[in-house]
Amino acid sequence: MEPAAFLAMGREVLSRQPFSRLVGAELVGLEPGSCELAVVLSAELKQQDGFAHGGVVSYLADNALTYAGGTALGVPVVTSEYKINYVRPAIGDRLVARARAAHVSRSQAVCQCEVYAIGAGTEKLCAIAQGTIVQIGDSKRAAASSAEEGGQ
Amino acid sequence: MEPAAFLAMGREVLSRQPFSRLVGAELVGLEPGSCELAVVLSAELKQQDGFAHGGVVSYLADNALTYAGGTALGVPVVTSEYKINYVRPAIGDRLVARARAAHVSRSQAVCQCEVYAIGAGTEKLCAIAQGTIVQIGDSKRAAASSAEEGGQ
Amino acid sequence: MEPAAFLAMGREVLSRQPFSRLVGAELVGLEPGSCELAVVLSAELKQQDGFAHGGVVSYLADNALTYAGGTALGVPVVTSEYKINYVRPAIGDRLVARARAAHVSRSQAVCQCEVYAIGAGTEKLCAIAQGTIVQIGDSKRAAASSAEEGGQ
Amino acid sequence: MEPAAFLAMGREVLSRQPFSRLVGAELVGLEPGSCELAVVLSAELKQQDGFAHGGVVSYLADNALTYAGGTALGVPVVTSEYKINYVRPAIGDRLVARARAAHVSRSQAVCQCEVYAIGAGTEKLCAIAQGTIVQIGDSKRAAASSAEEGGQ
Repeated sequence: MEPAAFLAMGREVLSRQPFSRLVGAELVGLEPGSCELAVVLSAELKQQDGFAHGGVVSYLADNALTYAGGTALGVPVVTSEYKINYVRPAIGDRLVARARAAHVSRSQAVCQCEVYAIGAGTEKLCAIAQGTIVQIGDSKRAAASSAEEGGQ
Repeated sequence: MEPAAFLAMGREVLSRQPFSRLVGAELVGLEPGSCELAVVLSAELKQQDGFAHGGVVSYLADNALTYAGGTALGVPVVTSEYKINYVRPAIGDRLVARARAAHVSRSQAVCQCEVYAIGAGTEKLCAIAQGTIVQIGDSKRAAASSAEEGGQ
Repeated sequence: MEPAAFLAMGREVLSRQPFSRLVGAELVGLEPGSCELAVVLSAELKQQDGFAHGGVVSYLADNALTYAGGTALGVPVVTSEYKINYVRPAIGDRLVARARAAHVSRSQAVCQCEVYAIGAGTEKLCAIAQGTIVQIGDSKRAAASSAEEGGQ
Repeated sequence: MEPAAFLAMGREVLSRQPFSRLVGAELVGLEPGSCELAVVLSAELKQQDGFAHGGVVSYLADNALTYAGGTALGVPVVTSEYKINYVRPAIGDRLVARARAAHVSRSQAVCQCEVYAIGAGTEKLCAIAQGTIVQIGDSKRAAASSAEEGGQ
């Protein structure tokens, strides 16, 4: 697929996520195994101290990891798990998450992501994440299995 | 502090977080070292498949961990890091995160959290998280130190 | 299977792990979905300050998580990933890890574990872990897939 | 400090860790903020399938993260927490962990690490880790605080 068409496809997926529209996420770049996802840091994305809320930083990391893993695997995926370290208050005009697949096997990708705050012409690292993205069939089977068992 | 006053204080903090208002978070319970935080699963909190977006589940876990750690420590705190496993698609009318401090020392608390989806009279486990909540002074020193170094 | 036979089976598996013999691990308890694994804190398991080496604490947590997940699933498994918080220096005569499955689906279990240091009649929490245990078939397919791709 | 003296200092620290001697760890490289730590994959470091035991892979990642963070901070440190994804069975003659500090503030460093299995002239990625290394004073204060409280 042409790079522009690939990015357009990714943006179309994002536009169908109501929560991504709510936070105003923009897919800046997308290639097989890597992703750049951004938000304008509007007032409603902040916490009581004027920084971006951790939930916004986590949303960006989580979604960028999923895009990186999904495009690496080339199949529908979900995030199975991830870990994030917040290393600095996220202050600025804009946040951008950059994720890439670090290891890809048949049914899962382990991905890494950094989140940067951009403002006043500088870019500062705010968070570092690592997670596992899995093929959705596996997840659905797992979910179905859980459902059969009556929950939990 | 009276239990009711303690909960009211927590709610007042939550009401000053614009992002928590955006997602409609409600602090259901708060005691020193434990917290219950919920959202009504409105359409705008979902992703393209009709489940709660992972970012919403993460927001709840992150914020509930912070409340549990902050009330255990009794000082201003931030979440330093956490890890989350999504174990089931979050489908239902409402999500609730329940967090507690598992270990508390002078300047940090290690906390655990479960997120449940509630609907049709049942409650199903959707995510499990574990993280470190630290006294904000330590974090501010760290941030200041980073700032002095000119970023990253 | 009888509880005693179940524990004996687990001990037989442990006895075939050279590294578990090297550290002197003892399987104290084993039931479907839970495990208790211990080591005597001999001098060779320590680091330069006389505490248990972090690697020993991690070994215990990792292996206890695997037993809890494997017995919950009832199939051969591997640890896919885990996270550990060290909350206190591990000082004492003996370390014990207690793990349990927190959520079980068809092909994976998310498990939690605490590691305690025991000495002078007391038991103190030293570490808290959370991880994902997966059916080995999935892992082998993933590994085979990686191998086909020529590594990394 | 001269690079050779820096490495010699690191090796001297390693030689005082009984558990590192037990597993036969060798510090291959050390610079401020980065570390390369290896083991020969002898029979006693394996599990029942002939792969390196996960505990050995974790030991390497944990210790390499600590060296990377400690040399970045330039003060005595401990690993506060880390997360590891095992991405492939560790098969080979030798394992090597390469760690680096990804973000350094006054009292903590967030570090990343990859563990590779080396054999038959190839090097294959086996595990990816991310963790927080903290200044030991903070940890000791935390531990002291825990001790005062009588544990847990």
